[in-house]
Amino acid sequence: MKNMNFEALFLGPKAENRDFFKEILNFVVDEHIHWRRNFHPDDVPSITLADQRREDFIRTQQKTQEVILQLSSLLKKSSIPWHSPRYVGHMTSDILMPAHLAYMFTMLYNPNNVAWEASPETTRLEIEVGRDLAQLMGFDRETAFGHITSGGSLANVEALWIARNLKSVPLAIREIQPELVAGLSERELQHLSPARVLGLVDVLKERMTEIKERSVRGRGLKPFQLGKIFLPETKHYSWVKAADLLGIGLENVVQVRVEENYRMDMTDLEMKLQQTVDAGDPILAVVGVVGTTEEAAVDPIDKIIELRSEFEKQGVSFYIHVDAAYGGYARSVFLNEESQFLPYEELLDTLDEKSIITKNFGWPSTQVYNAFKAVAEVDSVTVDPHKLGYIPYQAGAVVFRDRRARQLISYFAPYVFSEDDADSNSLLLGSYIVEGSKAGAAAAAAWTAHQVLGLNVEGYGKIIGEGIEGAQRFYQHICEEPLIRVGDRSFRIAALTEPDMNIIVYALNEESNNSLEQMNDLNRRIKEKLCFSPNKSVYVYDFMVSSTTLEHAEYGDQPQKFLDKFGIPESEWEASHEVFVMRSTIMSPYLTEDFTDVDYLGQFFQNLEKLLQEIIKEE
Amino acid sequence: MKNMNFEALFLGPKAENRDFFKEILNFVVDEHIHWRRNFHPDDVPSITLADQRREDFIRTQQKTQEVILQLSSLLKKSSIPWHSPRYVGHMTSDILMPAHLAYMFTMLYNPNNVAWEASPETTRLEIEVGRDLAQLMGFDRETAFGHITSGGSLANVEALWIARNLKSVPLAIREIQPELVAGLSERELQHLSPARVLGLVDVLKERMTEIKERSVRGRGLKPFQLGKIFLPETKHYSWVKAADLLGIGLENVVQVRVEENYRMDMTDLEMKLQQTVDAGDPILAVVGVVGTTEEAAVDPIDKIIELRSEFEKQGVSFYIHVDAAYGGYARSVFLNEESQFLPYEELLDTLDEKSIITKNFGWPSTQVYNAFKAVAEVDSVTVDPHKLGYIPYQAGAVVFRDRRARQLISYFAPYVFSEDDADSNSLLLGSYIVEGSKAGAAAAAAWTAHQVLGLNVEGYGKIIGEGIEGAQRFYQHICEEPLIRVGDRSFRIAALTEPDMNIIVYALNEESNNSLEQMNDLNRRIKEKLCFSPNKSVYVYDFMVSSTTLEHAEYGDQPQKFLDKFGIPESEWEASHEVFVMRSTIMSPYLTEDFTDVDYLGQFFQNLEKLLQEIIKEE
Repeated sequence: MKNMNFEALFLGPKAENRDFFKEILNFVVDEHIHWRRNFHPDDVPSITLADQRREDFIRTQQKTQEVILQLSSLLKKSSIPWHSPRYVGHMTSDILMPAHLAYMFTMLYNPNNVAWEASPETTRLEIEVGRDLAQLMGFDRETAFGHITSGGSLANVEALWIARNLKSVPLAIREIQPELVAGLSERELQHLSPARVLGLVDVLKERMTEIKERSVRGRGLKPFQLGKIFLPETKHYSWVKAADLLGIGLENVVQVRVEENYRMDMTDLEMKLQQTVDAGDPILAVVGVVGTTEEAAVDPIDKIIELRSEFEKQGVSFYIHVDAAYGGYARSVFLNEESQFLPYEELLDTLDEKSIITKNFGWPSTQVYNAFKAVAEVDSVTVDPHKLGYIPYQAGAVVFRDRRARQLISYFAPYVFSEDDADSNSLLLGSYIVEGSKAGAAAAAAWTAHQVLGLNVEGYGKIIGEGIEGAQRFYQHICEEPLIRVGDRSFRIAALTEPDMNIIVYALNEESNNSLEQMNDLNRRIKEKLCFSPNKSVYVYDFMVSSTTLEHAEYGDQPQKFLDKFGIPESEWEASHEVFVMRSTIMSPYLTEDFTDVDYLGQFFQNLEKLLQEIIKEE
Repeated sequence: MKNMNFEALFLGPKAENRDFFKEILNFVVDEHIHWRRNFHPDDVPSITLADQRREDFIRTQQKTQEVILQLSSLLKKSSIPWHSPRYVGHMTSDILMPAHLAYMFTMLYNPNNVAWEASPETTRLEIEVGRDLAQLMGFDRETAFGHITSGGSLANVEALWIARNLKSVPLAIREIQPELVAGLSERELQHLSPARVLGLVDVLKERMTEIKERSVRGRGLKPFQLGKIFLPETKHYSWVKAADLLGIGLENVVQVRVEENYRMDMTDLEMKLQQTVDAGDPILAVVGVVGTTEEAAVDPIDKIIELRSEFEKQGVSFYIHVDAAYGGYARSVFLNEESQFLPYEELLDTLDEKSIITKNFGWPSTQVYNAFKAVAEVDSVTVDPHKLGYIPYQAGAVVFRDRRARQLISYFAPYVFSEDDADSNSLLLGSYIVEGSKAGAAAAAAWTAHQVLGLNVEGYGKIIGEGIEGAQRFYQHICEEPLIRVGDRSFRIAALTEPDMNIIVYALNEESNNSLEQMNDLNRRIKEKLCFSPNKSVYVYDFMVSSTTLEHAEYGDQPQKFLDKFGIPESEWEASHEVFVMRSTIMSPYLTEDFTDVDYLGQFFQNLEKLLQEIIKEE
């Protein structure tokens, strides 16, 4: 929305918007109560006042109250204060109030989006949310297909499921209508582009059942040689699950190296793809990540698209999926209210004019810009409302560019699907997605947030942009003041990379130290003071971050470049092969003093100094 | 809980418990608000009063309010009145208030049960819920493993995933430590019992990574011959999904016939298993259903267990899973407060004495009793809190009898798992279940309901038992008054079977009619007046039921026996091969006059008569 003020959209670090929240919540709960009473208003109450005065009734109420208050106490004791600007750890922060409210009261109606019969309204809202997300990715709202999943892991599974079955379809078609693929060799059939396969399926749509019976769906994986999937080393572990779950096997997962910005190394990808082709194996899929779990690095999606075009010249195509579980909503930073992807210079000007991201930061780099832009050309995308959509758990989502793809996994016979009637097609969601029963409330929450904010630079883009600017400021601070002095000792802080988005990874080392073990030890001790531990009260923390370990097994020798910044020699890396680092996700717009009188970012670095003093004392 | 009064546990058909609901909700929302303010209480508000008076702030609030009220209106217009005793359709009814409250306010803390770091308290509650459900199934709380899934479909997928990988393990073990399986032929290795395989894995637990690399997880399905899965014709469609998703293929799904009670036909199962063994193929798994989706039929789990013992004599074993997504919680009807499965006669007496199910009904039959009892002996069970757990969507669950099984799909290396330390093992849930990020609020809701009610005949058993009795009364009414006279015409109503649980399937036919087409037409017209349609307001319905079609493709010729009751000749069945039927799930305890002054069940049949009059007039 134009002139949106996001301060009105969160309950707030100090529950500043409590009156509004409670007023609306009570009103819509009352609406539900009266809706109940309005269904056959003349029916007498089933629970009478006399019942309510019975001893066993009161005891049962009492028990309910006791357990609820116990739960409330447990939650207060050890929940994580995501809402505070002092929390800069995992990918969570305060949640959009419209989403919270929508989820909470929709739940009272308890719609189940497995089928429209159990959710007449919220199934429709879920289809709308799917279209919104398709449009966000640059797909056509009407010919794409998207829906809510239980999370990003399941979205990845569903995309790979479709890619896998699609890959087996050309061989199925050869069996049932060979003339349609006449002249194509086995190898050529294995390397058809996803678009071409969907085109063939369309020609044969009356024989969809036969196709499916002869695809992996019917025959299982055993008779097929479907090839390998290629993923960056920075991939989320759900891809390992997916490859196992789908029967593909981890042996068929090829890890692609990352370059110094922790983005997929295109030279390595090209080499590995070519090796595979040369060995006569098909390529099942290439997965790029937009916003890696640890670094929020953005893989060069544009280059992956180009590479596919290159390979297609040698008759080799493959499915491309983008895992934007984290980064997906950030595409709204690049879109105007007409959902047009802004030209580069105009984008920088717009972000600057609207005080979202100061032009000085030079964000986005052209690499990040081109990567986000190219998402529009891939086959499918994972994008989680419960991450940068600022929706409560749980709501992931997956979007397919071409909705015909869903027919490959649908339970129903094809005659149920009429191309003219996209809506009713979509109303039995459970029959062509991974999940069955699912909360309509999650769809209502995402829909409400999309309606209020808008998936563009005037809405979501503004909030996410603030976080990106926060990360740039964090990075700038580290670059400008790399040394923290404590008494006569001096500690260096350095960032792993300049952030592609709103996550920054960093570590400290004492200037005189060149032992990796000691450096890791220092950062582990800092971590203890900044990361939640179940044994300590949450109230002892001044700030909270998260941490991770960069290991050789995952990243090869790339972390060695980071150690260079601290003067840690290569031999140290060779000896231990792991670097312990801190990691901060900047989702709170309240970190910087633009929006509050308090400079939490400045306090964060002062606090680091204090922690170093404590650590020195403890030595 | 002893002397529980379930009238205190629901918001109520007329929102009778509104004051209690709102009082508790407001209190725990306030607790959350003050918790926010108590984290660094001296921090000044980030959103100032001045901010809150800005024009853009007010416009943003206004927009939020508009969209929320729009959503509320949409929901009121076309939600299904599950809460009313007039709704006797799908497997939904009013929800337990403790669960609703817990879900709603836990959501404000937004815990993510992917890992304990994001949900220190609710991950622990989820483990407790898993243990509760294990105990409910008759497993050992401590050595079993259960957790919340996004729904029953995913629970089924996860169980079959583990069964599949487990089946490939003996061959993996032969590769890495052949002496451990010395003397066993390939065929014998393929037919080892799940318990024996887990025992072997335990011996080799230090080499778990190597085992996994050589199992389906590492190598994919291609090199393995894992065999077929056996399911009754009444199976839920999620099993088709699961077989596709897991790469097993629908060709490897064998449908077992059902007998006249729509329970798995053991003769057919035995014959098909033997044929498979004789053909030299392994048996991957046998799945029994406790509470089929359409009929709530209970497969003879005890007989499946016996059959496995029989087959083990010829050296053939297999995995047994029970899909009790619907029926699982009903096991609480059979348990006393010490979680002991009551002896048959004592059970009937207890249910009668506590006015849960009158002894006259003779429920449960010994078949149903023995089936529920034998669940304790299977390998894993699907059981959905969001069905007979009366929890809001979405929360399914899966329970494995032997928690060592989860190592086969876990992401982490085995050294992370210490047998002595079950709790910390379980704290990174996302690393060894299908899902990743997941709502801690769902676990909190299930935990709260379990704490308040108890999974035994004093708690859940009481509520579910009331529904079972309701279905028995419904059935009795049909049996005692099979003819409905409208003027000079006479219509027969008959039930498909005596209900095993709380779902009853039935149809009507005019006495003089012996055309199946006309009979189906009549029931379709009745259905239009009793089943929700998106084009009509919910307020026009006096009662609501659901409907389904019994087709030859699914049920073979079994439905012919039902048509016999209406005098429809075999030739009619042969010609159309489908019967349209009505289906009522009795989850509301308010249907019968035991608990209200109104006899809704009696009204339901009067209303049927009224509908028949209308239909006659429309002719």
